Amino acid sequence: MTIETAITQLRNLLDDRLSTSDAILTQHGENEAYFPATPPDAVAFPLNTAEVSEIMKICAAEACPIIAYGTGTSLEGHQLAVRGGISLDMSRMNAVLKIHAEDLDAVVQPGVTRKQLNTDLRATGLFFPVDPGADASIGGMAATRASGTTAVRYGTMRENVLALEVVLADGRIIRTGTRARKSSTGYDLTKLFVGSEGTLGIITEVTVKLQGQPEAISAATCVFPDVETAVNTVISTIQMGIPMARIELVDEVMVRGFNAYNGGDLPEKPHLFVEFHGSVNGVAEQAELFGEIVADNSGTDFKWSASAAERTALWDLRHNAYYAQKAVRKGARIQNTDVCVPISNLAEVILATKAEGESLGLLFTVVGHVGDGNFHCGICIDPDNEQEIANAAVFTRNLAMRALKYDGTVSGEHGIGMGKIKYMADEHGEALSVMIDIKKSLDPQNILNPGKMLPIN
Amino acid sequence: MTIETAITQLRNLLDDRLSTSDAILTQHGENEAYFPATPPDAVAFPLNTAEVSEIMKICAAEACPIIAYGTGTSLEGHQLAVRGGISLDMSRMNAVLKIHAEDLDAVVQPGVTRKQLNTDLRATGLFFPVDPGADASIGGMAATRASGTTAVRYGTMRENVLALEVVLADGRIIRTGTRARKSSTGYDLTKLFVGSEGTLGIITEVTVKLQGQPEAISAATCVFPDVETAVNTVISTIQMGIPMARIELVDEVMVRGFNAYNGGDLPEKPHLFVEFHGSVNGVAEQAELFGEIVADNSGTDFKWSASAAERTALWDLRHNAYYAQKAVRKGARIQNTDVCVPISNLAEVILATKAEGESLGLLFTVVGHVGDGNFHCGICIDPDNEQEIANAAVFTRNLAMRALKYDGTVSGEHGIGMGKIKYMADEHGEALSVMIDIKKSLDPQNILNPGKMLPIN
Repeated sequence: MTIETAITQLRNLLDDRLSTSDAILTQHGENEAYFPATPPDAVAFPLNTAEVSEIMKICAAEACPIIAYGTGTSLEGHQLAVRGGISLDMSRMNAVLKIHAEDLDAVVQPGVTRKQLNTDLRATGLFFPVDPGADASIGGMAATRASGTTAVRYGTMRENVLALEVVLADGRIIRTGTRARKSSTGYDLTKLFVGSEGTLGIITEVTVKLQGQPEAISAATCVFPDVETAVNTVISTIQMGIPMARIELVDEVMVRGFNAYNGGDLPEKPHLFVEFHGSVNGVAEQAELFGEIVADNSGTDFKWSASAAERTALWDLRHNAYYAQKAVRKGARIQNTDVCVPISNLAEVILATKAEGESLGLLFTVVGHVGDGNFHCGICIDPDNEQEIANAAVFTRNLAMRALKYDGTVSGEHGIGMGKIKYMADEHGEALSVMIDIKKSLDPQNILNPGKMLPIN
Repeated sequence: MTIETAITQLRNLLDDRLSTSDAILTQHGENEAYFPATPPDAVAFPLNTAEVSEIMKICAAEACPIIAYGTGTSLEGHQLAVRGGISLDMSRMNAVLKIHAEDLDAVVQPGVTRKQLNTDLRATGLFFPVDPGADASIGGMAATRASGTTAVRYGTMRENVLALEVVLADGRIIRTGTRARKSSTGYDLTKLFVGSEGTLGIITEVTVKLQGQPEAISAATCVFPDVETAVNTVISTIQMGIPMARIELVDEVMVRGFNAYNGGDLPEKPHLFVEFHGSVNGVAEQAELFGEIVADNSGTDFKWSASAAERTALWDLRHNAYYAQKAVRKGARIQNTDVCVPISNLAEVILATKAEGESLGLLFTVVGHVGDGNFHCGICIDPDNEQEIANAAVFTRNLAMRALKYDGTVSGEHGIGMGKIKYMADEHGEALSVMIDIKKSLDPQNILNPGKMLPIN
C-alpha cells in the first residue's frame, strides 16, 4: 500500500496522461493564496467518468491521497497535495454535454470553465450566472460552493447545481438529483457534495441552472464619503427588496489600487459598483429607487456604464482586484480572507475590522459582495516582515471570530481548504462531529483531499 | 431495552405531558393519506430542546422508535408509528423566538405553523412565502422539504431554511448553518436535515428567510380548451422568464370538484390560477406579457381578482382541493400522489398520465404547481372496489416510473414517507447506498422514524 505502487498502476492505466514531470508537478503545487508550494507525487489527466472510477479504485487499494484539481484558483489552498498523492486534473473532461435551453439547464463535465460555458450559451439567449471572478471550472466551483458578484440575485453554486455525478472513494459512481426543479425524495446529496471540497467524492458531471439574458442591463458606480454610508446604502437597498444583480463595495484603498493598476482616476473614496437586470422599465425603476437611496446616504458621482463594453470594463476591473491589490504596495504578498454576516451587522463588522487593521498597522483593501453580507480583506504584506505576518494572522483570526460573534460565518465563499480548518470547531461546535462522521462513513481511509476542511488525521 | 421501559422513564420525565390515552394515540395514528390507522405507544409533548434531548437519550437507551409529529398533514404517512414507539408532538414548542426584520429572517420553534408565523409578521411588512396549502408546522415543513404554490417564485423549504437546531439520535444537540445568507464552511448539514423526514434527527429550531410584502399583488384565472394548451402556456411563461408568484394548473375534473364543493360556476375546462408580485408597474408589465402568451395559446375568460378578499378566496379554493376532490365523487377515498419533471416534458407527461388513467377507468383530478414542473393526481377511489384500488396502484407506479423516464423525480413535494419507499432505488440507484450509509452513521439503531424513506430494517 504505497503511493509509488499507485503511480505505477496509474501509469499502466493512463500512459502519458499520468505525469511526474517537474513542470507539471510544480504547476499543480502552486496556489494563489499564501501557502508554500506543495507539489503532488503525480498528476493524472482523466478523460471520462469510467477512468476516474478506475483511478479511484487504484488509489483506494493503495490508500493513496487523491485531490481533484480544477483551475487552481482556490484562495485557501484546496488543491494542494499536503499528504502527497495524485492531483486529478479535470481539465480534459471539459465537454458541454447538453444544453436544455427549454428547461434552462445544462449538463457539463467538471473541467468546463464558466466562461467556456457562457461562450457556448451565446446563441441560446441564456447564461450561467455564478461569477466568482476567476474563470474557474464548474466542477471546482461546485466543490467549493463558489459564489461571487451575482450571488445576491442568482444565488451561489448551492442554488445553481441541480444534479451531480460523483465518483466515491471506492470507485463507485453515483448520480444525485435530477433535472426536475425540486424533489422531496431522500437526503439532498447534491447539496452535500456541493461545497465538500473534494473530501467526499470526485465530481464528474454537473447539471447547472441557466438564466435568460435580461432584456435590459444597466451598471453604474457611485461614490461615498465613507464606508459606513456606502454600507448603509447597501443595507437599505436589500431591505427595500430592490432585486440588484450586483452590488459591490470597493473601499478607498481598493480604489487606489484600481487607479494604480489601470491608470484610472476614480475618486479615492469608497464606491459601490452596481448592476441592474430586468425589463427596460424594470431596470429604470430599480435604478431610480436605488438612486434615491444613494442620495439619502450622501452618495454622489453616479456614473452609468452605457454600453456593454463599458460594463465589461467595469467588471473586469472588479475581477482584477487581486492584481490591483498588488499595485497598492509593490512587492507585497496579498493575503485574502473573507467572511459573511447578516446584513444588519455588516456596517459594524466592517468598521470594527478596518479599525483593528489600522491599529495593527496593516495595509489592506475591503471589497465585497455586500448585498449578501459577504466581504473580503486583501492584506498587502511585506513577505520579509515577521511582525506584519504575525499581525496579519491576528487580524484574520479576529475577523473570523468577529463574524461568528455577529451571527455570521468564517467564510462566505473562499471556503475552508487548509486556511480555515482551525476555525471549524468555533463555527460548527458539535455539528463538526456530524461532518466527521459523514466523512468517515464515505471515505474511511481519508484519501479524498486529506488535510482539508476537517480537523482529522 | 423495551418500549415499555422507555414509556415508564418518559412518564417520570414528562408527567402528564406523556400521554397514552386512547384519544391522543388515535389522533396521532391517523393520516390524510390512504394508510391504515397506526397509533404510537405513547405521545410525548416536549416544551423545549433540552427536554427533547432527554427524551431522545431515553429512547436511545431503550432502542425505542421516536417519530416527530407536526400537524399530521403529511400525504405519505410520514408521522405513523409503524414500528410502535413514541410520537413526539412538537405543538407545544410553538414560539416565534425572534424576528430579524432588518435581515429578513425569523427564528422559530418547530411547532409554529406557517399561518401563525405570518400572523406574527403582519406588522413588519414581511411574510414567510412557503405555502403547501395545509397550515403545516414549520418544523414539519422543513423535515419534508415542503413547497407549494409559491415555490416557483420563492423556492421550497430547501431554499428558505437558513439554519437549524437538531437533536441527534443520541441526544446531542447541534446547530447547522448561521443567519448569514451564504457560507462555504463545511458540509451543508442544514440541507441534509431539510427533507430528511425525521430519520436523521429531531428539528428543534428553524431559522427561515422572509420576504418583503410586494408593493402590488394581482391574481387571475383563465380558461383553456384543453390541458395541453394550458401547460404550453406555463412552459412559455417560465421560458420567457416572467417572475410568476404562482402559476397553478387545475384540470376540468378538479374544476368540477371546486364547483361541487363551493357551488361555483367556473367553466368546466382546464384553468390556470396565477398571481403576480412586484411593483405596480412591474405587475402590470408581467400581467400584460402573460396575457399575450395566454391568448397565443387559445386561453380565454381572463378574470382578475381585484381585491385582497377575492385573492384569498381564490387561493382558499385551490387549497381546498382535497375536499373538492371528495366532492367529485361522493364517498370516495382520495389517493393523492405527485411527481415533478423538467418543464419541457410536462405536457407530454401529463397527457400520457391522463390517457393511462382514463384507460384504467379511474376518476382523478390533475392539479399542480406547474411552473416547477410539479403536478398532483388525486384519484377518487371507491374504497370497496378491489379492482379500482389495484388500478390506482398501477397508475401511481406508472406515473412514478414515467417521471423518472422523463428526467424527473417520483415526488416533487409530498415526499417518500411510507408510500414511495419502493421507488427509492429506481430513482437513486447506487446513491441510495450513500443515503443508507449516512443514516447508519447518524442513527445506528434506526430509532428515528424507522420504516420511512429508506428501505432498511
